[in-house]
Amino acid sequence: MYIGVDYYPEHWPEERWSTDARLMQEAGFNVVRLGEFDWVNMEPEDGVFTFAKWDRALAALAERGLSAILCTPTAVMPAWVAHKHPETLALQKDGTRLTWGVRKNNCFSSGTYRFLSQRITRAMAEHFADTPNVIGWQTDNEFGNPFCYCASCRADFQHWLRRKYETLDELNRAWGTHFWGHRIQSWEEITIPDDATSHNPSACLDWQRHFSWMNVRFQHEQVEILRAGCPRHFITHNFMGLFPELDYYDLAKDLDVVSWDNYPVWGAPEVRYDSSMAADLMRGLLARNFWIMEQTAGPGGWGAYGRNPRPGELRNVCYQQLAHGADAQVWFRWRTCTAGREQYWHGLLGHDGRALRRYQEAAQTAGEYRTLEKALAGTTVKADVAILYDYDSLWAVRIQPGYGGNDYTTAVRRFYRALFRAGVNVDLIPPTADFSLYKAVFAPDLCVLPDALAEHLAAYVKRGGVLLSDCRTGVKDATGLCHERTLPGLLAPVFGIEIQEYDAVPGNVTHAISGRAPIAGSFNATLSTDWVIPGTAEVLASYQDWHLQAYAAVTRNRCGDGWGYYVGTVAKEDAFYDAVVAAVLASAAVQALVTPPAGVEVSRRQGPKADLLFLINHTEEPKAVTVPAGKTELLSGKKTRRELLLERFGVAVIQL
Amino acid sequence: MYIGVDYYPEHWPEERWSTDARLMQEAGFNVVRLGEFDWVNMEPEDGVFTFAKWDRALAALAERGLSAILCTPTAVMPAWVAHKHPETLALQKDGTRLTWGVRKNNCFSSGTYRFLSQRITRAMAEHFADTPNVIGWQTDNEFGNPFCYCASCRADFQHWLRRKYETLDELNRAWGTHFWGHRIQSWEEITIPDDATSHNPSACLDWQRHFSWMNVRFQHEQVEILRAGCPRHFITHNFMGLFPELDYYDLAKDLDVVSWDNYPVWGAPEVRYDSSMAADLMRGLLARNFWIMEQTAGPGGWGAYGRNPRPGELRNVCYQQLAHGADAQVWFRWRTCTAGREQYWHGLLGHDGRALRRYQEAAQTAGEYRTLEKALAGTTVKADVAILYDYDSLWAVRIQPGYGGNDYTTAVRRFYRALFRAGVNVDLIPPTADFSLYKAVFAPDLCVLPDALAEHLAAYVKRGGVLLSDCRTGVKDATGLCHERTLPGLLAPVFGIEIQEYDAVPGNVTHAISGRAPIAGSFNATLSTDWVIPGTAEVLASYQDWHLQAYAAVTRNRCGDGWGYYVGTVAKEDAFYDAVVAAVLASAAVQALVTPPAGVEVSRRQGPKADLLFLINHTEEPKAVTVPAGKTELLSGKKTRRELLLERFGVAVIQL
Amino acid sequence: MYIGVDYYPEHWPEERWSTDARLMQEAGFNVVRLGEFDWVNMEPEDGVFTFAKWDRALAALAERGLSAILCTPTAVMPAWVAHKHPETLALQKDGTRLTWGVRKNNCFSSGTYRFLSQRITRAMAEHFADTPNVIGWQTDNEFGNPFCYCASCRADFQHWLRRKYETLDELNRAWGTHFWGHRIQSWEEITIPDDATSHNPSACLDWQRHFSWMNVRFQHEQVEILRAGCPRHFITHNFMGLFPELDYYDLAKDLDVVSWDNYPVWGAPEVRYDSSMAADLMRGLLARNFWIMEQTAGPGGWGAYGRNPRPGELRNVCYQQLAHGADAQVWFRWRTCTAGREQYWHGLLGHDGRALRRYQEAAQTAGEYRTLEKALAGTTVKADVAILYDYDSLWAVRIQPGYGGNDYTTAVRRFYRALFRAGVNVDLIPPTADFSLYKAVFAPDLCVLPDALAEHLAAYVKRGGVLLSDCRTGVKDATGLCHERTLPGLLAPVFGIEIQEYDAVPGNVTHAISGRAPIAGSFNATLSTDWVIPGTAEVLASYQDWHLQAYAAVTRNRCGDGWGYYVGTVAKEDAFYDAVVAAVLASAAVQALVTPPAGVEVSRRQGPKADLLFLINHTEEPKAVTVPAGKTELLSGKKTRRELLLERFGVAVIQL
Repeated sequence: MYIGVDYYPEHWPEERWSTDARLMQEAGFNVVRLGEFDWVNMEPEDGVFTFAKWDRALAALAERGLSAILCTPTAVMPAWVAHKHPETLALQKDGTRLTWGVRKNNCFSSGTYRFLSQRITRAMAEHFADTPNVIGWQTDNEFGNPFCYCASCRADFQHWLRRKYETLDELNRAWGTHFWGHRIQSWEEITIPDDATSHNPSACLDWQRHFSWMNVRFQHEQVEILRAGCPRHFITHNFMGLFPELDYYDLAKDLDVVSWDNYPVWGAPEVRYDSSMAADLMRGLLARNFWIMEQTAGPGGWGAYGRNPRPGELRNVCYQQLAHGADAQVWFRWRTCTAGREQYWHGLLGHDGRALRRYQEAAQTAGEYRTLEKALAGTTVKADVAILYDYDSLWAVRIQPGYGGNDYTTAVRRFYRALFRAGVNVDLIPPTADFSLYKAVFAPDLCVLPDALAEHLAAYVKRGGVLLSDCRTGVKDATGLCHERTLPGLLAPVFGIEIQEYDAVPGNVTHAISGRAPIAGSFNATLSTDWVIPGTAEVLASYQDWHLQAYAAVTRNRCGDGWGYYVGTVAKEDAFYDAVVAAVLASAAVQALVTPPAGVEVSRRQGPKADLLFLINHTEEPKAVTVPAGKTELLSGKKTRRELLLERFGVAVIQL
Repeated sequence: MYIGVDYYPEHWPEERWSTDARLMQEAGFNVVRLGEFDWVNMEPEDGVFTFAKWDRALAALAERGLSAILCTPTAVMPAWVAHKHPETLALQKDGTRLTWGVRKNNCFSSGTYRFLSQRITRAMAEHFADTPNVIGWQTDNEFGNPFCYCASCRADFQHWLRRKYETLDELNRAWGTHFWGHRIQSWEEITIPDDATSHNPSACLDWQRHFSWMNVRFQHEQVEILRAGCPRHFITHNFMGLFPELDYYDLAKDLDVVSWDNYPVWGAPEVRYDSSMAADLMRGLLARNFWIMEQTAGPGGWGAYGRNPRPGELRNVCYQQLAHGADAQVWFRWRTCTAGREQYWHGLLGHDGRALRRYQEAAQTAGEYRTLEKALAGTTVKADVAILYDYDSLWAVRIQPGYGGNDYTTAVRRFYRALFRAGVNVDLIPPTADFSLYKAVFAPDLCVLPDALAEHLAAYVKRGGVLLSDCRTGVKDATGLCHERTLPGLLAPVFGIEIQEYDAVPGNVTHAISGRAPIAGSFNATLSTDWVIPGTAEVLASYQDWHLQAYAAVTRNRCGDGWGYYVGTVAKEDAFYDAVVAAVLASAAVQALVTPPAGVEVSRRQGPKADLLFLINHTEEPKAVTVPAGKTELLSGKKTRRELLLERFGVAVIQL
Repeated sequence: MYIGVDYYPEHWPEERWSTDARLMQEAGFNVVRLGEFDWVNMEPEDGVFTFAKWDRALAALAERGLSAILCTPTAVMPAWVAHKHPETLALQKDGTRLTWGVRKNNCFSSGTYRFLSQRITRAMAEHFADTPNVIGWQTDNEFGNPFCYCASCRADFQHWLRRKYETLDELNRAWGTHFWGHRIQSWEEITIPDDATSHNPSACLDWQRHFSWMNVRFQHEQVEILRAGCPRHFITHNFMGLFPELDYYDLAKDLDVVSWDNYPVWGAPEVRYDSSMAADLMRGLLARNFWIMEQTAGPGGWGAYGRNPRPGELRNVCYQQLAHGADAQVWFRWRTCTAGREQYWHGLLGHDGRALRRYQEAAQTAGEYRTLEKALAGTTVKADVAILYDYDSLWAVRIQPGYGGNDYTTAVRRFYRALFRAGVNVDLIPPTADFSLYKAVFAPDLCVLPDALAEHLAAYVKRGGVLLSDCRTGVKDATGLCHERTLPGLLAPVFGIEIQEYDAVPGNVTHAISGRAPIAGSFNATLSTDWVIPGTAEVLASYQDWHLQAYAAVTRNRCGDGWGYYVGTVAKEDAFYDAVVAAVLASAAVQALVTPPAGVEVSRRQGPKADLLFLINHTEEPKAVTVPAGKTELLSGKKTRRELLLERFGVAVIQL
């Protein structure tokens, strides 16, 4: 198992390297990631490459048994690139180029930048292909910025559209340019829709897709070179969890393994739903375990930093990822840099370079991981429940939310969090996934619903699946045109309802909901109501207001061998989602092994030889959990009783 | 009476047109408005005109007895215009041009755009002059955007100033360029005051006037062509109620009738003061009845939509306009477009094209209107009370509010709403109006008070009129220079007071006010206090604070045969304005026919043959109103008793 | 003593000048400041100078015994300058130049603007050198704006860096460009760090210093000309108190006297800590008394104005400055201008030009000052306590606050206000000051702590001084690199503590603090905690939270003959700072002569012949103060008893 740290030898005098490598080894580390920002040292002049310093750094690490993941350094262009080729800097909406002196400021359509990127990648691949302790590559760093509005990007967009739609007639149809008389009569007329609040939403959606595609293309050009030059090395990229600008499924396709950067320690301590959900998405990108490439090692921030992790909190954060399928653990960063914009993005060591509390905690965690290593081998999360996570819907909702406050990821969170509280593992999956692998599929806020996907989902339910959707599902087709079918369109037989009208609910207004079993209780509808007319569906919850009494808030419908649940609104209460999720799980015959108390997370990794139950206390109070008795808790080596006590931020790993 | 809908045949396949026309006819419609965004179909290439499709659409409508109002389509330029003539796109402050792909993005000083606008207008006028069911024209669509900062607009501004001021000496005097050493020594030195918070306020005021004038000029060029080409057709424009960027009096001068776009359904239901006030302004533009050209037909919005009108609410909204003088009713829009930025701006029909609830409600309303048609003929609102609504003051206050939170329209609203609650009809009139037609004139926040207007108002009072003004009235002259007279300047004899000092009141501070009859009660002064020294005036309300005890909050003064009321502050309480308005109405011997309960609106239309009292319940609760007994309520056909019950959103029309 | 007003003869007809001069004389004035915005009248055409009108204005003032301070008029360029030389207008980040028509819109690196500035300065110096009533000069007006991003400023910045660092190696070291691979390899590669939230903080800090230096250079070029041409005249500039953009110590160096513009009357009345603190800083710039060049004369504001000073408040504001070392009092402005952006920035006279209430109050104050004049002669504030006020730290914290909500001036305020409440005078001093002049030195938030300064402070304590610092002190060196020493670095022996970790506290979180004598009580830590490990230090306050129990909140350490106090956090309560300050004062044996009640300010001016105690009531309630009995209160001429009663806004001046 790879455990290690992100290291910047270029930040420190060479004399310090051996001390650093020794301290890493003493902490139990066996890997470092390096080089993503050091282009200028590798190519100090246009076309002149010098790797001697890097060879010495790698050798110093090798002496302490540390393997290396190298990065293509294209996340920061050297000053000479910007000075010599100003067109490589992204053009902003106001017509000025980004100023050199930050990072991630390049135009992705720039031929010059693509040429330079390929040249440095090739030079590194050639130089490091046979360096003994180099084991793999990270492409660039945290793809996803910046958007660029230059003539080259506009032409690239036009060309991309031409390949996608082939004819102007098809483009005009797909974008619905009959609206506002926006018919395009030559490809050159197409503009960048630079204001997503007023341009054609279909054009905006394609512009976002094109941006994502440009990043994928940029990475692909590097990957091709690395595959050819370093056939023994794996290739990864450090993703950013729930970062919304790129289609991460697409970006992952070229890679051997997905890794990601996890920074959950900011404000007051809280239950870490989002880092759990992000981990499940990262695992879903290639449907296998992932790595942590950057893990919180201290307070982070550019201007102001966040919270210093409390004693035990760093370890807690690591275990959450392990429990969700992390197969490697790399802290960010080794030592806090004394210079530059991330002076206050703290590492395991502070500015003073001393091996203090945070270092000790990382070392302790590494030691524990070594004891778990054999048990973990070959295990992964095997979920009965999936959430469909769809970038097209995410972007379409962002461009045009419909009801005020609608945000795709927030909509997904409502159900994810209830599943988390229920102690049930979840896969986040793309719309192209095989739904039949799951007993239940949640598809909230699935704004973009092409007919094929609707049919796919309907077939899944007919064959016995349980599907849940909620308000505003299925509004648009693949190019962002609204369907002409009355909602829920092709899913009508699944849900047994019809929606003729719908209503945005202003921020300060709520409508009372009464639920009956299995979702008994009083709740409050906010943000939006579909005016759901039940057909064959059973009404599980209704409204009280005079104008909504005819409509259902929640319905359940038998369809073939399966069930369709429809939630017609956004409720204010977590308890509402807990009840709805419990009902869906019951219909799907999914049962949690352990029902955790508030603030405790449960996750399970299973493999041919092991079945491991992780319990993670996200709170600063001790927590008692009812667990299967008589099993071995691997960290203590003790047998479990019915009640297991987790200390503050505590974790347990039970071999089932 | 024209009742109809805004229709976009270009959004739908030709096969659908006959169905749409039939459904319109069945709903009782007899008119449609068309074409304002379809330039690209009429002139697909530079100078090539094709109207065949439009001829077919008009014919399909004619078959169902539907008349047509055509629009000049200059609110959206075709893509080829922007591509071929980039100078037609407005230049933003940051030096970039607006991107093609939205609407209303043209520069109004562009010679190219004016040329193209006139050419398409001429081509349409020639083509449609004799189309039988075409009855009139709408110029462009919702004038008022965008501001442009290009060299051509700057030169146009300089030229406009030259014609206005003739000499640089006069310009320098009028703008007071002695301040900050800003003397202009050649017309070319004049810049666009692009930051209204730091440039010379007089320059800013003229820049706003010039923008308004450019819109008027642009419309005028189209009107001249339409008058010449289509002498049988009327010409209108769709105004936007309280939209503040244009001098609407000026824009209306060229037109036969004012029409406007009314979208009051957004957040939680509320008493609709603003759509009532807007209607009274629309009626005031040409001092006659107006049309509704776009009326809420469903939830509207570009990114997020607002509320879905409740059952009965669409009808309620229509009747409010009818009661204030609407002579035609056109819903926006027919069917919700499945494409483009207004995908979620809903029509009477949804995306599915079915004739559902909102359609039915519109049809019901149309049917009722037909029964009222004879009674309505020749009637209009005849008000005893006027509010002076002045764009110069509106703009001057916006450029330089004086006290924080001062907004001209909000100041007007305070008195308008109290008059609404009192059940009294009001005309909103320009400063050039004949005040002698009114028993009382309210002139709140009349910041810009040229001497001629002050003398006009004083003469009105001397001859028996009742005038009310409030704090900061009369501060500036016509070019925005402050008067050198101690306030209230030439109105001092009218109000019998002197104001040597005044004070901005911070947001969290109030000063207690005690009123005596006729405005007895305790109130709180906010935002601003004029330190009013009563001369001949009677003090109706005073302050409690130590530093204000010498000053009056409200005064009343006998002047000639009339009365001058002065309100020296902004009170927090509606009750304050109710009391002040009651006092003014008493002085003016104006009495309401019906005193409505809270949430119910009263309006009256009178003509040679009829006198109609409208009662409109804006609430979701039934309301009982005391009305003249023994009259006929026209919608039910029943005789009235002393108490009339309005259901939720209900309306009644009593023939007096 | 100079008492007077800022006057704009160019705003009024010449006929009015004699009336104005007479009214000034009658108010007791003997000085006016003039001309800072009137370049266009002095040089109406390029290179053509006409001073005749100014000669007449000066003569009119001379007739009434009024001396004149003239300004170089470079704060507003004439229209012809901008029209002929557009490069003199500052370039904004979006690539557009500021529009002519405001003030302070010039680029400071523009050769053209520097040439024109020197030429008009020389012409004025030559013309007015011997005008009898001209006594001195003000350079420009309120230096500090705007930042410019043009090619010339970039080149100027590169050149400035070259002179500062001499070699690129040194620049790269000083900026730590090893971070993000930002090594600079030619001076031309250096960019303007135009986004202080993402560029290298060291580069941002130097960019701010360069901007400050450009202003100083611009002034210096004028000062050289004035010194040569008008050797008899003094030179000043009107500073802006706590304005943060310039190093005011540096700007003051070229001047004979510091003057400043004081506008404390805006919102609800309050204790005026900031105008007191600003006065102490103004006095600290040259370590001597200062002038008031612009003093609130009425409501001020560009768009919306603030509060009208209450009766007695104008006088109160004046006395506060007098008490802190003002040696001249000039009101802004004489008469409210009827034109331009400052139409509502009110003077002693309103638009009507009448000598009303505010004029009378100014006249009364002037009269009182005359009676105090003899006593005041030779007196100044002699403080035992200093606060180190450091622009490098201010800027470094602004660029990178570290913990959220950290603002340097706010940090200083916490201690300043407690000292104000304690009735103790304070000097605000630069880091180069001689600390041995003070019994106690407060150095809060001293982020930038070069080794020499640390050693200087440590030596001060060892020799008996009392030093207080607080959290995040000493993080960076002179170029903004973080020290590699464990905090508090070189100050560790002074404070007897070590700080291995620190923590940002989110906005809604607090940590309970318990203090013991001398700072007994319960308080709440916010914003940030240093995790202070006491060494030799005594712990004066501790935390309650589980993770902080090992750390000290406040410590005190004996070091040599002095004391080091360390406050490891930001407390919510004023009482905390009152207690800490009391402890420090006790250690330093500093005792207040009078302990004022809440809302009353105490200050003392001492000289060879007089010792004056000022008491100022900032509230609208009368206040009783315990004072030394049997002394003379100079305004009333009465002997003091033990209790002295101050009326609302009242002041007393006791001859000790």
